[in-house]
Amino acid sequence: MARVYNFSAGPAMMPTAVMERAQAEMLDWHGTGMSIMEVSHRGKDYTAVAKKAEADLRQLMAIPDNYKVLFLQGGASLQFAMIPLNLANEGDTVDYFNTGVWSEKAIKEASRFCQVNVVASHSSAIPEMSEWKLSPDAQYVHYTPNETIGGLEFQQIPDVGDKVLVADMSSTILSRPIDVSRFGVIYAGAQKNIGPAGLTIVIIRDDLLGKARVGTPTMLNYQSAADNDSMYNTPATYPWYMAGLVFEWLLDKGGLSAMAIINERKAQKLYAAIDQSNGFYANPVKPSDRSWMNVPFTLKDAALDATFLAETAAAGLTSLKGHKIVGGMRASIYNAMPEAGVDALVAFMHDFAQRHG
Amino acid sequence: MARVYNFSAGPAMMPTAVMERAQAEMLDWHGTGMSIMEVSHRGKDYTAVAKKAEADLRQLMAIPDNYKVLFLQGGASLQFAMIPLNLANEGDTVDYFNTGVWSEKAIKEASRFCQVNVVASHSSAIPEMSEWKLSPDAQYVHYTPNETIGGLEFQQIPDVGDKVLVADMSSTILSRPIDVSRFGVIYAGAQKNIGPAGLTIVIIRDDLLGKARVGTPTMLNYQSAADNDSMYNTPATYPWYMAGLVFEWLLDKGGLSAMAIINERKAQKLYAAIDQSNGFYANPVKPSDRSWMNVPFTLKDAALDATFLAETAAAGLTSLKGHKIVGGMRASIYNAMPEAGVDALVAFMHDFAQRHG
Repeated sequence: MARVYNFSAGPAMMPTAVMERAQAEMLDWHGTGMSIMEVSHRGKDYTAVAKKAEADLRQLMAIPDNYKVLFLQGGASLQFAMIPLNLANEGDTVDYFNTGVWSEKAIKEASRFCQVNVVASHSSAIPEMSEWKLSPDAQYVHYTPNETIGGLEFQQIPDVGDKVLVADMSSTILSRPIDVSRFGVIYAGAQKNIGPAGLTIVIIRDDLLGKARVGTPTMLNYQSAADNDSMYNTPATYPWYMAGLVFEWLLDKGGLSAMAIINERKAQKLYAAIDQSNGFYANPVKPSDRSWMNVPFTLKDAALDATFLAETAAAGLTSLKGHKIVGGMRASIYNAMPEAGVDALVAFMHDFAQRHG
Repeated sequence: MARVYNFSAGPAMMPTAVMERAQAEMLDWHGTGMSIMEVSHRGKDYTAVAKKAEADLRQLMAIPDNYKVLFLQGGASLQFAMIPLNLANEGDTVDYFNTGVWSEKAIKEASRFCQVNVVASHSSAIPEMSEWKLSPDAQYVHYTPNETIGGLEFQQIPDVGDKVLVADMSSTILSRPIDVSRFGVIYAGAQKNIGPAGLTIVIIRDDLLGKARVGTPTMLNYQSAADNDSMYNTPATYPWYMAGLVFEWLLDKGGLSAMAIINERKAQKLYAAIDQSNGFYANPVKPSDRSWMNVPFTLKDAALDATFLAETAAAGLTSLKGHKIVGGMRASIYNAMPEAGVDALVAFMHDFAQRHG
């Protein structure tokens, strides 16, 4: 079978060019007679791979020099604990926006370690600034720029004054340029826009290091990772290598400004297909707050869901089933999804609506 | 270049047959048009891969039904904190054997959470039972069956009576059959005898679940993983898949009894080459306690180290440089190292000694 257009929310489609390169050097990396998977993380070959990946990510995101880039494990879910353990003490107040399922998970875990103040809650629109209830004494303000399940996205970085801003960028990182200097900490699980599952990237302003509370496990202290170039112990070497290949691919494509143009256009095409379907398809999110990366939509008649999924799969458009919490469909259209994939889905949706509308 | 014999201590050589299979299905897993790296961990394809890997590991190690098998992240270093957080409360006493660098790391981290009693300390021989000072009230007894750096290995499971025995098996798991029922918890980083770095396997007796102390991060609570088939969040899907391929390969080879015969023979050949070199090579470990997996050795004249390393590398025998703590050489000869690789190293060592002795 040829490569399909895979709309999985994560682990997600990888660029085919990246997969082909990884395949070609699988058993013999750069003439060494070994896979990069098989070499010591402390050897010169792997160290070069690791440093190159970091340098390329720094270039892609224009990360200022006073930020450390960490390549960790455990996913965003482990960050939900690491953020409060590293940035606040027991009893401290921390501010969280609640814009959906992933915000709620972050809030639930942080509540085990701090006093959480919910700044504002909405699941189908980004809360207006007039509704925000920021705490005067919060140690940081946390938000989820893109909700993978709900499909809503902050189009602007929230202005929280001089507070430390923390963002779970798992499903939006690398989709467009962002001003890293506005953030205290950015974290992201790799399995959407970065690379394979099992890698977590943390970008942290260096003055926030060294503040972990007493009793924080060494592996959960950002300082341990920062002091050891993310090699306090053996990192997830192969996912890190794959992420490096993705970063190179993004630079070749023109970087994040170029990706943003494509990503916005891909999203607009898909939302237009939904909005112009005379109600056959629907998306509940306020149009100005819709995600560029995750497009959930429902069919007017849920009885057609199974047919839609079977026919799209047969047409090489896979993994469109929506998250069980919201039902319906979800098309995740990360950087690796070619515009041709979105075009094929839009054409299918139009045809399906014609046949069943 | 042809595949080399790679003696890295970890990340380590993988079976070439496994790498070839992974390469073949890299872009199109089982006719799906996707890599297994690109599919949701909650989909039926990946779930089948994950369950098969667990079932094969259970068969290989004859894991009793009252043990959970967890596929986690973070390496043994994260387990150094998870073990005390899950099995003991602050102020509780826990017993640790100290047989080298990895024991010491485990002790250092556990000491942040409990009162650690060191049962016995030796770095070139396994402590005799007559020297052990077990605590009457220890919540568990921890040991490192194989010290990757020092190259010494317990050839018998220590008899700790009815105490919960915990083992860091990172560099010995799957090298020979063991009686899992003797243990409370077995853990191992994957990057030596299991698969790629970024995966950690924990085998835990189910009555030990649900005892994590208050304040343990959810991701560090074994119960969270056990309740969710190691998918509380996205696991390291590709390393888990690769581990599954290794387990299939081991079953094809005849399982752990067959591997033990080969591993013991490989080790004996290498130690014989050292011991019969008239002092040109030396290994400091008591012969009965020598590791089957990691064979450190020094050259009589350390000035020859660089020549030895250059000549072995040129001969396709790579990654033989010893750990900086002990210097000299180290040949790690895990399951994936063919006996022919050991034969080639032994032949080289003999020739080198003839030329330089």
